[in-house]
Amino acid sequence: MALGYSVHAFGRLFSRMYTSGASSDLVGFIGLGNMGLPMARNLMAKGHRLVVYDTVKTQVDAAVSDGAIAATGPSEVAKQATTICTMLPASQHVRDVYTSPGGIFSAVQSGSLLIDCSTIDRDSAIEMSELAKENNTQYIDAPVSGGVGAATNGLLTFMLGGPDDCYERAKPLLEKMGKNVFHCGENGAGQATKICNNMLLAIEMIGTSEVLLMAQNLGLDPKLCSKVINASSGRSWSCDTYNPCPGVMENVPSSRNYEGGFGTGLMRKDLTLAQAAAVGSKSVTPLGAMALHIYNLMCQHGFEKKDFSSVYKFLEQEN
Amino acid sequence: MALGYSVHAFGRLFSRMYTSGASSDLVGFIGLGNMGLPMARNLMAKGHRLVVYDTVKTQVDAAVSDGAIAATGPSEVAKQATTICTMLPASQHVRDVYTSPGGIFSAVQSGSLLIDCSTIDRDSAIEMSELAKENNTQYIDAPVSGGVGAATNGLLTFMLGGPDDCYERAKPLLEKMGKNVFHCGENGAGQATKICNNMLLAIEMIGTSEVLLMAQNLGLDPKLCSKVINASSGRSWSCDTYNPCPGVMENVPSSRNYEGGFGTGLMRKDLTLAQAAAVGSKSVTPLGAMALHIYNLMCQHGFEKKDFSSVYKFLEQEN
Amino acid sequence: MALGYSVHAFGRLFSRMYTSGASSDLVGFIGLGNMGLPMARNLMAKGHRLVVYDTVKTQVDAAVSDGAIAATGPSEVAKQATTICTMLPASQHVRDVYTSPGGIFSAVQSGSLLIDCSTIDRDSAIEMSELAKENNTQYIDAPVSGGVGAATNGLLTFMLGGPDDCYERAKPLLEKMGKNVFHCGENGAGQATKICNNMLLAIEMIGTSEVLLMAQNLGLDPKLCSKVINASSGRSWSCDTYNPCPGVMENVPSSRNYEGGFGTGLMRKDLTLAQAAAVGSKSVTPLGAMALHIYNLMCQHGFEKKDFSSVYKFLEQEN
Amino acid sequence: MALGYSVHAFGRLFSRMYTSGASSDLVGFIGLGNMGLPMARNLMAKGHRLVVYDTVKTQVDAAVSDGAIAATGPSEVAKQATTICTMLPASQHVRDVYTSPGGIFSAVQSGSLLIDCSTIDRDSAIEMSELAKENNTQYIDAPVSGGVGAATNGLLTFMLGGPDDCYERAKPLLEKMGKNVFHCGENGAGQATKICNNMLLAIEMIGTSEVLLMAQNLGLDPKLCSKVINASSGRSWSCDTYNPCPGVMENVPSSRNYEGGFGTGLMRKDLTLAQAAAVGSKSVTPLGAMALHIYNLMCQHGFEKKDFSSVYKFLEQEN
Repeated sequence: MALGYSVHAFGRLFSRMYTSGASSDLVGFIGLGNMGLPMARNLMAKGHRLVVYDTVKTQVDAAVSDGAIAATGPSEVAKQATTICTMLPASQHVRDVYTSPGGIFSAVQSGSLLIDCSTIDRDSAIEMSELAKENNTQYIDAPVSGGVGAATNGLLTFMLGGPDDCYERAKPLLEKMGKNVFHCGENGAGQATKICNNMLLAIEMIGTSEVLLMAQNLGLDPKLCSKVINASSGRSWSCDTYNPCPGVMENVPSSRNYEGGFGTGLMRKDLTLAQAAAVGSKSVTPLGAMALHIYNLMCQHGFEKKDFSSVYKFLEQEN
Repeated sequence: MALGYSVHAFGRLFSRMYTSGASSDLVGFIGLGNMGLPMARNLMAKGHRLVVYDTVKTQVDAAVSDGAIAATGPSEVAKQATTICTMLPASQHVRDVYTSPGGIFSAVQSGSLLIDCSTIDRDSAIEMSELAKENNTQYIDAPVSGGVGAATNGLLTFMLGGPDDCYERAKPLLEKMGKNVFHCGENGAGQATKICNNMLLAIEMIGTSEVLLMAQNLGLDPKLCSKVINASSGRSWSCDTYNPCPGVMENVPSSRNYEGGFGTGLMRKDLTLAQAAAVGSKSVTPLGAMALHIYNLMCQHGFEKKDFSSVYKFLEQEN
Repeated sequence: MALGYSVHAFGRLFSRMYTSGASSDLVGFIGLGNMGLPMARNLMAKGHRLVVYDTVKTQVDAAVSDGAIAATGPSEVAKQATTICTMLPASQHVRDVYTSPGGIFSAVQSGSLLIDCSTIDRDSAIEMSELAKENNTQYIDAPVSGGVGAATNGLLTFMLGGPDDCYERAKPLLEKMGKNVFHCGENGAGQATKICNNMLLAIEMIGTSEVLLMAQNLGLDPKLCSKVINASSGRSWSCDTYNPCPGVMENVPSSRNYEGGFGTGLMRKDLTLAQAAAVGSKSVTPLGAMALHIYNLMCQHGFEKKDFSSVYKFLEQEN
Repeated sequence: MALGYSVHAFGRLFSRMYTSGASSDLVGFIGLGNMGLPMARNLMAKGHRLVVYDTVKTQVDAAVSDGAIAATGPSEVAKQATTICTMLPASQHVRDVYTSPGGIFSAVQSGSLLIDCSTIDRDSAIEMSELAKENNTQYIDAPVSGGVGAATNGLLTFMLGGPDDCYERAKPLLEKMGKNVFHCGENGAGQATKICNNMLLAIEMIGTSEVLLMAQNLGLDPKLCSKVINASSGRSWSCDTYNPCPGVMENVPSSRNYEGGFGTGLMRKDLTLAQAAAVGSKSVTPLGAMALHIYNLMCQHGFEKKDFSSVYKFLEQEN
């Protein structure tokens, strides 16, 4: 273990030597799940020293084995780092990590930058940003688009909500984990943009699945039909990049029994956030509402862990 | 009139002189509406001599002034041409033009090729193909994607349903009117593919409209939100090429009060065909069904003549 | 067989002795399934002599054991009876029984009354009525509302489509099998009324299920909530007579694991007919369309044989 | 003013003389709109002395002319009465009347009973009940079913949420304004039950409208079709008591151009509350969601002030 640590320390030294633009300051990272861990690894691979925390010890150990320093809780992270990323499952976890007695705000250093990459409701994001101001810190909501693969390969898209200077400050760090960093507006705008994109994605994925199933019922070949659609006005990412019909494309979840990818349960979560926002803002979203209920039904009928493109399977007729 | 004819004859002679690959045989063209007339003009511009018919005399006159020969009815066209294109509003017109006493089948020459570019129900297309066989002729369904602009500029997409030899025979002619000619399968497959694409298009256009309206209700800029979506998994033709929100893109119907483009009434027609096919084939299409009823409501509330992207306007909240 | 016949003849003699108003003529009955057999039994119990046919021999045997005469096919029935009831699963069976070489029309006696109690599409019903006219007979569409229980207890509701004299002629016979005989209009009107009622029923059953599930998620008691609804503007047959929530009412399918009653597969069939009619008649039916797709999904996920009120179960959240 | 008071005092004396069971204590009533004023009048007609407040002076004057005492604000009502009814448009008004500096809680007497008849979100109702407890008072949510007519004729249905003793204490007063007083559960249960009923009502009204329109498109008489449905499994309050098709019933909004009744805008408000509750409680409500969006669209297309049964008109095809 001591040896292992030396090796890692050496690794960090080495990476600092050959990586230009890397900060000598510690960066905090809280939330080392399926998404958070590969994101943290990309930061380390690009020269950052990380102080990390997660409630699951094995995840922390994995980060430490790559060079991270383990902290005993969010407040310990805040004491050591002035730039902190959080990547957590849902709103209540974010509230907990930021506002609980042992949370970030209990020990945060003045002038710190807090970057929340979690997908949570817009109101909570705005509330966190206001609490950050009261603590003389900056908060930016920075939810991501792209799944575990994109997180691993540093190809995430970040959608940022916060003041201009905050965006400028966060951008260089986020670019080490993603290919696109969009500034979408004031605090909350990152979360709002994220649910807009994902609601549309769900609608398009369901629509594509309906159409490719109907195509086959009408005697068409789904691969050929997809090809025509991709060259026509029905074209979308769901059809040309992530086709839900098994056999049309390789290397997508539909061709490996809908394993991996972006889970149906996570899509349900995003659609729930989207409909809460739609109802609250009096937006007329008949297809968005239907999308939520279709994903609700999928979760209730055994599809929760499958990729969200398995809606194709859910809608498919038995023989 | 005689003089006019001579001028046209000269024009045709002239075009034959400078156009390589043009057939010396007459091509028939029945149905010279908003789509049919520019399609016919493209054939003539690329060297084909046309014998044409339409029930509206001014449309026939327009074609004649460009060099076409006017016929007195479908049977007259069939007597003079062994390749005939039809471009008609709906199934009943196709049945009428092909099967009525003065229709194509009453005078068609053995071995003729009949290319129906109309969008009609798949069953009618299959029925026409069977009647064609009984008359020792070939029939191919060849509905188009793309509006008046694409027809004018020869940029249509053709979706063909029929036997291989029929496809090979039709392709060179259709390439003079369009950029893509897809062979989708047996007779009826062209029509089936067309409604698959258009049903998906309607779903995506409604979804895009819902999302861009909600985005604004949540304080986002629709242009910026579209930009993020276009770089993310919500990307589609409806958002990146034909954006329904006024001001996001130039030169699309949404930026000219939804004038021109592909009419809401026509989308309703296609969605009606799609749902008839879905119900008949026991396909599960919740969003496709909802799309039909939204376009039905639009037609009932003053949007029939507007471009189909005006669903954005239909869903928009009053201030 | 001869002996059996004598016994049956005695039974018929006996029944004629104690039953007033019974016709001495044979009545034909074709289709002795779950609905047809108890309907035929009611006719016999009220004094009618029946000549019957079904493709399933055990069903014919059951009717014969109650006094019916077995025929070898529809044409044999038509030769012996001038009033014939048919109760068949779907349109194609009706077409077959009426129009095939050994069908009713091949041997029907002039002036016969043909009463089709099957639920089929309106167009087929109208077509059968026209063929009947050509054969100098009368046809009336008479689909029923009410399940196996109502059929057994003579409590069906008949919805009739046909001319006035035909209605008057059919009514006394149908009243022996049901409590209500409605004359809904010309031929096809019976079928049209049936799908109108059943489409509304499906919508109300889904709506009631959604509401009683949401009620419980909000901490309400479903029995008490149903009681309030039944005294308020949300009242409907689905809530006050056939409540889909287990435990609210006794003696309904929801209280016996959704066994018995009116099957989900049959509701899907009726909703398919309804949507074909809606699309064909350009009717705007967003909830009717959604109802079809929900029942489609139920059939695809194991609910086909359950009572149609099991939509409650299909929508229910797992714990 | 002094004179006026004497007259009112005389009126109260007089009413106490002829009304048995009337309390000699003042009852507070805040919110004298279309619903509140007739409710207050029923209390006065049945012997109660009222101290009232509304922001609209003419409404207060109307109550005063019937014998009520005008207060200058909610806190003044709370100083004079220990039983207070509130009947307000929406959640924010309730919060304001109860919690603002001049609100009820600023001056409420210990042991008072606060009965909120407004339709508001369940969470706000629960929050008010908790604030009430902190102020040593009792709060019960008591939203009503039934429109202006039921309020005027004392035929409302009350749905109560609160502790048993609170229900027992409120019941005698509410029975003077309504025919049914249901105890639905703890605080919030009244509001929850109300939105359950109204969500179901909306679904049934839309479904009935779809069906009666389709019926006519299929050649049926809507009055006859309604009669059959009312005797069958499609029966509901929307069809047998409040039929949305003009001409089927007398004395309902559909027969007077959808004037009066329960406004489309109010139904939208209730459906918005229902969907917020559905999304928040993870309830699967596809038809409830669709109902919200249909009523949203109606409000956006000129139906906001019409009775909610005008969805029939909204869905109707133009000729």
